[in-house]
Amino acid sequence: MIVLGVDPGSRVTGYGLVERKDRKLVCLQSGTFVTSVHLPFHERIHEIFRSMCGIMERFGPGEMAVEDIFFHKNLQSSLKLGHARGAVLIAAVQHGIRIFEYSPLEIKKSVVGYGRATKEQVCAMTQIMLKLKNPPPFDASDALAAALCHLNWSRLGKIRQ
Amino acid sequence: MIVLGVDPGSRVTGYGLVERKDRKLVCLQSGTFVTSVHLPFHERIHEIFRSMCGIMERFGPGEMAVEDIFFHKNLQSSLKLGHARGAVLIAAVQHGIRIFEYSPLEIKKSVVGYGRATKEQVCAMTQIMLKLKNPPPFDASDALAAALCHLNWSRLGKIRQ
Repeated sequence: MIVLGVDPGSRVTGYGLVERKDRKLVCLQSGTFVTSVHLPFHERIHEIFRSMCGIMERFGPGEMAVEDIFFHKNLQSSLKLGHARGAVLIAAVQHGIRIFEYSPLEIKKSVVGYGRATKEQVCAMTQIMLKLKNPPPFDASDALAAALCHLNWSRLGKIRQ
Repeated sequence: MIVLGVDPGSRVTGYGLVERKDRKLVCLQSGTFVTSVHLPFHERIHEIFRSMCGIMERFGPGEMAVEDIFFHKNLQSSLKLGHARGAVLIAAVQHGIRIFEYSPLEIKKSVVGYGRATKEQVCAMTQIMLKLKNPPPFDASDALAAALCHLNWSRLGKIRQ
């Protein structure tokens, strides 16, 4: 089973694909999509949708893990984030991918063991757990952490949607 | 040219299709999509996307008018609204429909002549302007008002994106 972790954002969306092979966790790919601030907002949102569809078609993940962020800094950034997150969810439903949501606290606790871990700590732990040569960018490591959290919950039989 | 007006919402999305024939404005169809609160949130967002795609394929509007709401009541409703609005924008870009955004004030001013008009006044004016037998539900009349506002701006050569 391949799990896609996503950290959506209207400017930068991080993603990471993790597969459990036997007992090993393997990172198939991770990275970020950066949308141009010079594009109209609706084209940026569509670009996120298209990029996610591309990743889903290429790797065929069966499940997706994403933060269940329902609070954000301010109204405007919440509204923008909502658009980007909507694009990611629609792409997943279109491709028949099961969606699992976790709170930022659950993800950090699952990966670092501490719910208030910093981005640096999350990044370092994903690098160690997935034996990556280089530390991924924060948006990608947040996405990988979501995927790892989901794989942890699945292993423990605690899955919930 | 057929113009699609949309009033997005994660619970209720209003839509209205208006065509200018010679000098007459004709309402081709208007209504609301209501998503079930019993469905998971991501399925509701995908449902809005699918319903919008259906409308776009059936009527082939060339342009879409939507409110440029970038402030809302609270963080949670902003985030939810963002998802729904994202679904509408992605559907439009997918179908090659040009998107035009107007502030609520511009829409009300254009239709009622007064930027702080009530929903009842907007509804009454869309009914009069489009010679509708019955007053449409508020979500549909807000959508029709967005379409009428856009047609007004186009007529005056004031279009802006």
